[in-house]
Amino acid sequence: MASTEASVAPTPLLKDELDIVIPTIRNLDFLEMWRPFFQPYHLIIVQDGDPSKTINVPEGFDYELYNRNDINRILGPKASCISFKDSACRCFGYMVSKKKYIFTIDDDCFVAKDPSGKAINALEQHIKNILSPSTPHFFNTLYDPYREGADFVRGYPFSLREGAKTAVSHGLWLNIPDYDAPTQLVKPRERNTRYVDAVMTIPKGTLFPMCGMNLTFDRELIGPAMYFGLMGDGQPIGRYDDMWAGWCMKVICDHLGLGVKTGLPYIWHSKASNPFVNLKKEYKGIFWQEEIIPFFQSAVLPKDCTSVQKCYLELSKQVKEKLAKVDPYFDKLADAMVTWIEAWDELNPAGAGASAPLPNGQKA
Amino acid sequence: MASTEASVAPTPLLKDELDIVIPTIRNLDFLEMWRPFFQPYHLIIVQDGDPSKTINVPEGFDYELYNRNDINRILGPKASCISFKDSACRCFGYMVSKKKYIFTIDDDCFVAKDPSGKAINALEQHIKNILSPSTPHFFNTLYDPYREGADFVRGYPFSLREGAKTAVSHGLWLNIPDYDAPTQLVKPRERNTRYVDAVMTIPKGTLFPMCGMNLTFDRELIGPAMYFGLMGDGQPIGRYDDMWAGWCMKVICDHLGLGVKTGLPYIWHSKASNPFVNLKKEYKGIFWQEEIIPFFQSAVLPKDCTSVQKCYLELSKQVKEKLAKVDPYFDKLADAMVTWIEAWDELNPAGAGASAPLPNGQKA
Repeated sequence: MASTEASVAPTPLLKDELDIVIPTIRNLDFLEMWRPFFQPYHLIIVQDGDPSKTINVPEGFDYELYNRNDINRILGPKASCISFKDSACRCFGYMVSKKKYIFTIDDDCFVAKDPSGKAINALEQHIKNILSPSTPHFFNTLYDPYREGADFVRGYPFSLREGAKTAVSHGLWLNIPDYDAPTQLVKPRERNTRYVDAVMTIPKGTLFPMCGMNLTFDRELIGPAMYFGLMGDGQPIGRYDDMWAGWCMKVICDHLGLGVKTGLPYIWHSKASNPFVNLKKEYKGIFWQEEIIPFFQSAVLPKDCTSVQKCYLELSKQVKEKLAKVDPYFDKLADAMVTWIEAWDELNPAGAGASAPLPNGQKA
Repeated sequence: MASTEASVAPTPLLKDELDIVIPTIRNLDFLEMWRPFFQPYHLIIVQDGDPSKTINVPEGFDYELYNRNDINRILGPKASCISFKDSACRCFGYMVSKKKYIFTIDDDCFVAKDPSGKAINALEQHIKNILSPSTPHFFNTLYDPYREGADFVRGYPFSLREGAKTAVSHGLWLNIPDYDAPTQLVKPRERNTRYVDAVMTIPKGTLFPMCGMNLTFDRELIGPAMYFGLMGDGQPIGRYDDMWAGWCMKVICDHLGLGVKTGLPYIWHSKASNPFVNLKKEYKGIFWQEEIIPFFQSAVLPKDCTSVQKCYLELSKQVKEKLAKVDPYFDKLADAMVTWIEAWDELNPAGAGASAPLPNGQKA
């Protein structure tokens, strides 16, 4: 009996409740390395750039693929809120998913190894992170108290030990760290080799730079806040898509009492992007973030903002009021934030669950 | 020439600027294991309990030792603010030190090993932590950006990369974790075996449970806030000494723009204290902390509190106003906080530097 049981592969966690969203402009050969971990899940591929190009997906994966033509067809005039020629386009995948959870990963990210040499199942760790509570209201010095072998330390208030619901799990990167262009230019040879065996909650009231390379979130809890902004083609800025989403999302999670975790899992980030190209994309952001961050640090949402949508629309108003003076771009961005919510609500009518049919979605 | 150079031992960091403070009731045999790391430094031993008992200190250590008679003689009536029969008495050592930095450690803490099997020089890591800046105003996902091989990640505002001065370095524990009595009772066999290779700043506005077992701080920056309260003999509570100091210290560091780090270094905590005895000591604290923590989370210090002393006296007023209604103990504690500052200022007159003679201090 024991041998029979051992031969039955366990059902992958959240198999029918999680979509993997991948933005790409190339063939998805990187999936070969992830096959043992990703194959049971459904993929949503958002093809960036030339829609006439064919993206090859390795055999055996269950996926749907959207190119720019699909996005325009599905969203109509509202497609203007989805970036083009920038990985920010991935957020279209969040919108068309009908699952409770999203894992998003870049196509230059490979399977990393832990210090014992074992391949890291990044998705499995994200699922562990997101299914266990967070501790945004008080810092636990032994990191995630819900992890095996850990707990709350002496002095941690007992009333806070139930924790908060976890909305986001932010994973990290071995090899090429996620540096900005100036740091890339100054430290071209720096590699991240430090494996920090920790998951922690980012405290309430604290902002952080959220990277979209290796990220999981609960669509039902926070999905509509995960808008990656206007970047790339026709926009004055790039490489701030995930940052923008991270700032908005964190302010809203803090307001709604939701938790955000960072740390494990690591992926292996294979190749540094071109720092000169990056500098061009980031240039304005380097100045703007000095005003954006104090804006988000002091943003207060009124009590009647009880849903993510309401919070996000309120934030868009505040962006218009307070950031448009930094650059007219923010006026446009604030409008796009509203369009994003309209499009989200159109594709995700209230009450629709995971079993609702994909509106206009194509299946490869 | 190379061989001559190699034979010269490097001068230990901050050798003449740091005191090691150890509270104890027993012979200090644990120092044998620490000899290679501690011997160059000066020790301040605070003997708790029966002053007629002789404490043996292994040969070759440079130390001064204070028992209760010494404390009473040096502080006179102000000695009432120093706890008796509780390791809270250690803060007397902070007060009589004339050095810029304090490292304090419990006598049941031994040298831990890192995952490669190398003995960890805890003091050296604390010194690295405290001599490099902190990042309390924004979270860096790759942990301490000043550590070798790390930096600020993309999206970290450039104006904040100078960091803040570090006032406190809070180290952790392998083997016996620092759990409260209920957790000890529920998980008698839990051991901390996870070595997390990280140092991080606790964000501004976030409180944490500070443990006094393995702790370093900058006396000049934050010393007067490091009062370990009224615990033990004649008091209704114990084991909240370091917690109290940590809450007060963090509120003041946040107000003054100073940084607090936690993480490395680990020490090996050898023996769990008795959970039944601990429960007796902690009992009231378990209830009280539910009101103390919201108090500290919402405490605001006025702008004219520009020194640690002023901040601390202001906090003592707020404790009297807002916590005395929880229990009369806090009225007494608020008074002791004032006495502590008076005693601190008496022993540390403004302008006195590291070379000032110890008033009434004895040298073994």
